[in-house]
Order: sequence, then structure tokens, then C-alpha cells
Amino acid sequence: MKLGELSKRLNCKLVGDPEVEIRGISEIQTAKEGDITFLTNPRYRKFLRESKASAVILGAEVPGLKMSQLVCDEPYVALAKAVALFYPEIHPEFKVSERAVVASSAKLGSECYIGDYAFVGENTVIGERVRIFPHVYIGSNCVVGDDTVIFPHVTVYDGTRIGKRVRIHAGAVIGSDGFGFAFSRREKKFYKIPQRGNVIVEDDVEIGANTTIDRGTIGSTIIGEGSKIDNLVQIGHNVKVGKFCTVVSQVGISGSARLGNFVTLAGKVGVAGHIEIADRVTVAAKAGVTKNIKKAGTYAGFPARPHKEWRKIQALIDRLPELYERVKRFIR
Amino acid sequence: MKLGELSKRLNCKLVGDPEVEIRGISEIQTAKEGDITFLTNPRYRKFLRESKASAVILGAEVPGLKMSQLVCDEPYVALAKAVALFYPEIHPEFKVSERAVVASSAKLGSECYIGDYAFVGENTVIGERVRIFPHVYIGSNCVVGDDTVIFPHVTVYDGTRIGKRVRIHAGAVIGSDGFGFAFSRREKKFYKIPQRGNVIVEDDVEIGANTTIDRGTIGSTIIGEGSKIDNLVQIGHNVKVGKFCTVVSQVGISGSARLGNFVTLAGKVGVAGHIEIADRVTVAAKAGVTKNIKKAGTYAGFPARPHKEWRKIQALIDRLPELYERVKRFIR
Amino acid sequence: MKLGELSKRLNCKLVGDPEVEIRGISEIQTAKEGDITFLTNPRYRKFLRESKASAVILGAEVPGLKMSQLVCDEPYVALAKAVALFYPEIHPEFKVSERAVVASSAKLGSECYIGDYAFVGENTVIGERVRIFPHVYIGSNCVVGDDTVIFPHVTVYDGTRIGKRVRIHAGAVIGSDGFGFAFSRREKKFYKIPQRGNVIVEDDVEIGANTTIDRGTIGSTIIGEGSKIDNLVQIGHNVKVGKFCTVVSQVGISGSARLGNFVTLAGKVGVAGHIEIADRVTVAAKAGVTKNIKKAGTYAGFPARPHKEWRKIQALIDRLPELYERVKRFIR
Repeated sequence: MKLGELSKRLNCKLVGDPEVEIRGISEIQTAKEGDITFLTNPRYRKFLRESKASAVILGAEVPGLKMSQLVCDEPYVALAKAVALFYPEIHPEFKVSERAVVASSAKLGSECYIGDYAFVGENTVIGERVRIFPHVYIGSNCVVGDDTVIFPHVTVYDGTRIGKRVRIHAGAVIGSDGFGFAFSRREKKFYKIPQRGNVIVEDDVEIGANTTIDRGTIGSTIIGEGSKIDNLVQIGHNVKVGKFCTVVSQVGISGSARLGNFVTLAGKVGVAGHIEIADRVTVAAKAGVTKNIKKAGTYAGFPARPHKEWRKIQALIDRLPELYERVKRFIR
Repeated sequence: MKLGELSKRLNCKLVGDPEVEIRGISEIQTAKEGDITFLTNPRYRKFLRESKASAVILGAEVPGLKMSQLVCDEPYVALAKAVALFYPEIHPEFKVSERAVVASSAKLGSECYIGDYAFVGENTVIGERVRIFPHVYIGSNCVVGDDTVIFPHVTVYDGTRIGKRVRIHAGAVIGSDGFGFAFSRREKKFYKIPQRGNVIVEDDVEIGANTTIDRGTIGSTIIGEGSKIDNLVQIGHNVKVGKFCTVVSQVGISGSARLGNFVTLAGKVGVAGHIEIADRVTVAAKAGVTKNIKKAGTYAGFPARPHKEWRKIQALIDRLPELYERVKRFIR
Repeated sequence: MKLGELSKRLNCKLVGDPEVEIRGISEIQTAKEGDITFLTNPRYRKFLRESKASAVILGAEVPGLKMSQLVCDEPYVALAKAVALFYPEIHPEFKVSERAVVASSAKLGSECYIGDYAFVGENTVIGERVRIFPHVYIGSNCVVGDDTVIFPHVTVYDGTRIGKRVRIHAGAVIGSDGFGFAFSRREKKFYKIPQRGNVIVEDDVEIGANTTIDRGTIGSTIIGEGSKIDNLVQIGHNVKVGKFCTVVSQVGISGSARLGNFVTLAGKVGVAGHIEIADRVTVAAKAGVTKNIKKAGTYAGFPARPHKEWRKIQALIDRLPELYERVKRFIR
């Protein structure tokens, strides 16, 4: 594709030669002639001048570059579109395998892919153009919306409702029992609180590999529209994740916690049970949220606090040796 | 069911009208007439007066409530029984699928469910009323006790022994190799320590989704009777978990650690290898246990220490800015 | 096997009677006559004198022991060899199940095991003596090298390249989408960055149960030769793990991070995106690496720093109550 054509498709300003032929996309260190490249991290800026790429997608024009530039205010969005253009996803064709089990009471969209050894339970309704890979298990009374893709070995327990254009990666478990047991001191044993709610996954959600989302005890666990959940995340029973949230790998959200919209939880964050987190809150990696967060902003540490406070305290901790030294010198 | 009848079944004192008809159970914020509700967290106490529920299960009578009350000293146990009464679990019927593989030397109880695409290996013995969902893999020489339920995509490696009334959620892996490698400096390579022990899961254990339990190197990894393990937990080789322990999501227990009975590890706790933890110890979320804990009580922090000490130090850390300020003013 | 013969096979010096018959290997506390035992942890040293074992593998001779000793400078390597001698792994026989799906364009080695309900996609090439257990999913255009073993429920996405003698435990996911989304403020929605790279797993790697390794966005995620990855580890897109690394359970490595060779990440360590870690670095459990580590050595804490510094600061934190006391007494 000619660079001029590409700039139009990506809605970018072209700085350079519209006739250059672009054949692919590469990382900046390994790009070669005919490639377009990108900057996902400022620390790769140094490679800009030495890269062999024919063009680069940037958020602001860089003067004096040898290669052509596609400039726009959302370069990461332009990259997303460029990758989709050059490397379209190859989907399995629509076909129901003879080696799949589809319950007689289940309903399938007129076009869909049900892979080998997949299982679709009683009364489950599968939408149009859904792709269900081999070895997927979908229980009874589930709904799967149009254009959703479910990768191998996903388990969807009974009663789960999954929206449209959802993408669920291999090994994820949706709708397992919440962790609820009542210990009877009198009888010295646990009673299981039966988990009889379900999980609702709204439209345009993505769920990572081997992530687990427990069903509600009573009522639903909800993953809001457009939210993106990474791998190995744990979401407890009756949690509500708002819309357009980002939940990074190995986060754990305890039962009945509620996230607002546009919340970001970075890697390994823990959220205690019944906690509420307001809209547009970002929690930094490895933090632990133990109290409600009522105001938008960035939080860090354990217990989590405003990021500025945390940085200040962190800096003072680093200076402890000096403080002890000083105190020792003056106070005997 | 009439409230009077329900109070008898749950062994609760009835405060209110025995003739009220109860049709279901709801969370306190969403309950409607005909529902019985409950309080799992004190912060929902405020909803008690405005809830539309017809009755509530409580640990102590609350004067002046509009709705009826079922009062008992173990309200959470009463809730567990109530949920089981109103919403009994729907099990697949006992039947061995023609699309399952059961080795000819395996033995199945007279009544059991073996789902589609399940695999049961040589010499494995499955008890009465066991339910093995589709896509489960059970290797050779295993034992699965009566009334156990194993959900889809669970892997049970060769030689595992599973007790009665055990419940294993989707994607859990029981009996994978422990993580043991000997690095030879001379040959500059790892030798694998072959992992030749097994896993023993005692009666009434529950194991969460995508949890992993490694087999012993030599000897067994043991999950004691009645213990409850949440999702995405890692249990290393030769670990002994005592009886009636609670291990919350994303905990990691390193090889050869030993937990006593009635131990609780909250979310994301890490336990170092070969550590011993005494009976009735609770470790708070995100703590890291690096030394033996010999006394019952609550511990927190990394390295873990008695909770009181940890709170004190945590409070002093929060006051560091003030301390620096004070020292700066007086010591130049 | 006679102890004299065993000492030769393990390349150890024999201190004691070469005629003793060794029948098995046991942990030191439970060993009985006829067993050989070992010390994996110094805290078990106390059992040396009371153990009933007939022999022990040691790194240095212990004077006055009742039992015989096999002494060598790499006792853990000798243990690895001993376990392999006494308890050889029992493999399923080479056979392609009629209940497996192997695409017609796939190529299988002349001897291999493809278990029931396994799936091998188009154009995938499987080497000699490969063992693929039941329920494994291997997508299209993959390569699996000779003598590799893949346990049940592993998912290998399209385009993955796996080396020789690799061992992948149950439920692991290789090649799931990296976590990349561009949020358009203008359109208030996420654009998915399509993930079009792959994963390369080099020779002699071991991957633990339910571990997830994301494919590169563009280019490859690479697990270097001989590296050992434990259970429930997350490895992000475009990460490079060097050769002979050890990555312990529940570690998370964010996108585009690079580990050198002989790097050890202990349990629950987090590594931020785009970070570089030099050869022969060890990071202690629960640490968080937020900056490049350029020098070999041991690091700890969050943010990670040299272990010595971290210990010093940790000790000062423990002494905060005393510091506050002192300051309070002298400064009003």
C-alpha cells in the first residue's frame, strides 16, 4: 500500500513521500525498508534516527527525520488500525464440527463456528458469526452474543450471559463458584454458601487467558461494556466492573467490590471485598486497595493512597539511613 | 415456604409473622416483598430499614424493624442452609457418555456422571455418585471418592487420591510436576529433579478454578480434610495444608511448607519454602511469610509479623513526613 | 542397587559399605532401612543422626554418621540422577488416537503419542517421539520439536514454535493475545491492537501449569534455551527471557521486558514493561522491578534495589518505634 493511501486510511497527516510502498509493520529496532514503524515507549526514541523503516507513526512531527512520518494526535489508535489493515485476523470458517456436542435445545446463529470437541449445553443461545474454538465448554442456559470469539479450553458455567464482540482467551473460567463458606463453631465445620447467581459479560469486553470470574452468590457478577481484562486475573463473586476499565494481569478483586467506569488497575493490584472505586481512578502496580476511593486520580501503595503521598513517603523511606545517622549524631 | 417453617428448618428464633410467604433470597439493596435477605458485611446495615425484603437473617435482634427477623448465633450458617433450600443445585444425571474414554481397567461407581470428552485412565477408581464434567482428564492409578464433583477442564495427573464430597472447579490442575531443578555449574545446565510423589486431597475439600497443586517430589502433597482453596492459588510440591484451612485467591505456598489446622491465608499471601505455620494462624492479605509462625493469632506484612506490630509500624511510616519535618527543624 | 554401584553412577565418593542394598529414595524424616535420603534444606540437618535411611547424598562428609554417605560437590544434581534411576518416568506408548483430530496438512514424527481428543491444526509439524496428551490444542502453522511432552489442556495458538525436549504442564496457554489497546479519547472507546506476532520456546524449556505466555504484537515473545518457568506465571507480549533463567510461580513480566541469561525471579516478582535485566541477576520474592538492572547480583523490594540496601532499610523500618521514641524524648 502506498503511504499516501495509508495516511488517508489512518487519518494522519503525511510528512514525506506519498508514493513510498509500505509492505509491513515492524518494531523500530528491527524494521527494514518498506516497513512502517511506531513508538510505543519514549525510551525507543533514540532509535528514530537510525531505524531503517520507510515511515513512522508519530504523535508530533519530528524535524529532520530521514524517513516519512504519519502524524496524528492518537498515534496508538492509528497503529491499531494499521496492524488490522496489514495483518487481518484469520478466522476459522463458519461450520459446526461433527465432533462437537450441541444440545438439541440449544440455538445456533445461522453462521457460526463450533470447533471439534466443543460442548454447548441445553437451552444455550449462540448468536450470529460466533466462533467457538475446540474444547470450549459452554453450560446450559447461557447466551453468547453476535461476533464473539471464545478460544480453546474456556469454561462457561451455566447461566452466563456474554455480549457481542466479546473475546475470551484460552483457559478462562467464567461463572465458577464464589468463595463463600460459613464456619460453624458449634459443629466445627464449613457450610458452603451455595453460589446461585451468574456472570454477565457486556459487549466489547476482552478476557485474558486463564482468568477466573466467579458467579454471584445471589445476583450477578458484571463486567461492564468495553472493559479489558488481562491474563490470570481473579474477579470474585458479585463484583461489578464498570465500563471501559482496564484490569492488568494478576489483579485480584475480592467479592462484592465495585469499580466505576474508566478505572485502571495495574498489574498485581489487590482490591478488598465490598470496596467501591470511583470513575477514572488508576491504581498503580502491586497496590492494595483497602478503603473506598471516592475521587478520580492515581493511587499507589498498600494500603493504597494518592500517588503523590505514596511517592513522598517512599522517598522518605529511602532516606531513612540518613535520618538515623543524623538523629544518632545529635541525640544520645 | 412460610417463615415459621423456614425458621424451624434454619434453627432460628422468629421475630415476626410466621405466616409470611418467602419465595426467594436477595441481596439487601435489591430485595423485594416475599424475599428473605441477609447481612454479610456491616457496611450494609444502613439498608436494613429501607429494604423491601419480608424478612432478614440476623445474628442479634434489631429493635423496630419493619420486616420479620430470623435470629440465630450463626447467621452465615443459616444463610448457607437457606440458599441450599431455595436454590438446590441442579446436577447432570448419572450417566456415562459414549463420547467419554474410560480405560477398561478403571472402575466406576454404580451411579455416576462421566461427561462428553472426559478421560479416565488405567486402574483409576471412581466412587459412587461422582460427577465428572466434560473435558475432565483423570490420569492412571487415581482414586476419586464418593459424591465428588469435578468441573470441566480439570486435569488430575497419575496417582492422585481425591476424597469424598470434594469439589474441584474448572481448569484446576492437580498433580503437575513440582518445580525442582539442580543447576550443575560444571555442566552449565539444569538437571530436572524428577517429581515422583503424588497429591492427596482429603474429604470435603473445595479447590478453586485454575488453581495448581504440584505433586510431591518424593512423598505426597496433602490438602487436609475440609480445607477450602480459592481460585488461582499455587501450592508447591510436598506442601501439607492442615484441616479446615482457608486459602484465598492468588496465594502462593512454596515447596514443603506446612500449614496447621484452621489456618487462614488471605488473598495474595506468599509462604516461603519449608515454613511451618501453627494452628489457628490468620495471615492478612498480601503478606509474605518468611519464618515459622509458632503461635496462633493474626499476622501481616512482609516479612510477616504480628498484626499489632505491623499496624504500629505502618502508622509510623504514615507519619514519616511529620517526623522528618520535626527533625529538620531541630537538628541542622 | 548396591550402594557401590550407585556411587559410581552418581559420580559420588562413597563413605561406607558398598554392599548395602538401596531400594528407594525417601525424605529424611520418613526414610527407612534400604532407602537413600538427601538434604534439600539445612534446617533438616538435625534429622541426619536419627534418620533410619541406609545412606545419604551430601555435599561434604559428615563425621560420625551411622549411615553411609555419597559425597559430591553437586549433591542436588546427584539427587536428580538418583530419582531418575529409581523412578523412571512412565510414558504413554507412541500411538495416534483415533479420537484425536490431526489436520491432513499436519506432519507427525514417525513415532509419537497423540492422545484422545487432542487437536493438531493445519500445517503444524510435530517432531519425533513427541507426546501430546489428551485434550491438548495445537493451532495451525506450529512447530513442536523432538521429545517434547505437552500435558492435558494445554493451548498452543497458531504460529507458535516449540523446541526440543520441552515440557509444558497442564492448562498452560502459549500464544494468547498480548494486552494492547489504544484508547481513543475522541471516540471514547478502545481500539484493539491486533496481536500478530508469535511465541518461540527454545530447547529444554519447562513451562508450569496454567502459566500464560502472550504472543508478540509484531515479532516474537521468546523463552530462551533451558529456562524453567513455574506455574501461574504471566509473560507479556514481546518479552525475551534469556537462557537458563528460573522464573518462579506467580511472577508477572510485562510487555517487552528483557531478561538476560541465568536470571532468577523468585515467587510473585513483578517486572514492569520495557525493563532490561542483566545476566546473572536474582530478584527476591515479591519484589517489583521498575527500572533497568544493569549489574549481576541480588535485588529485593519494591521498587527493587540491591538486596543489601533493601535489608538495611528494612531493618531501619523495624526500628521506627524506637526512633520515634527517641526523637519524642528530645525534641518537643
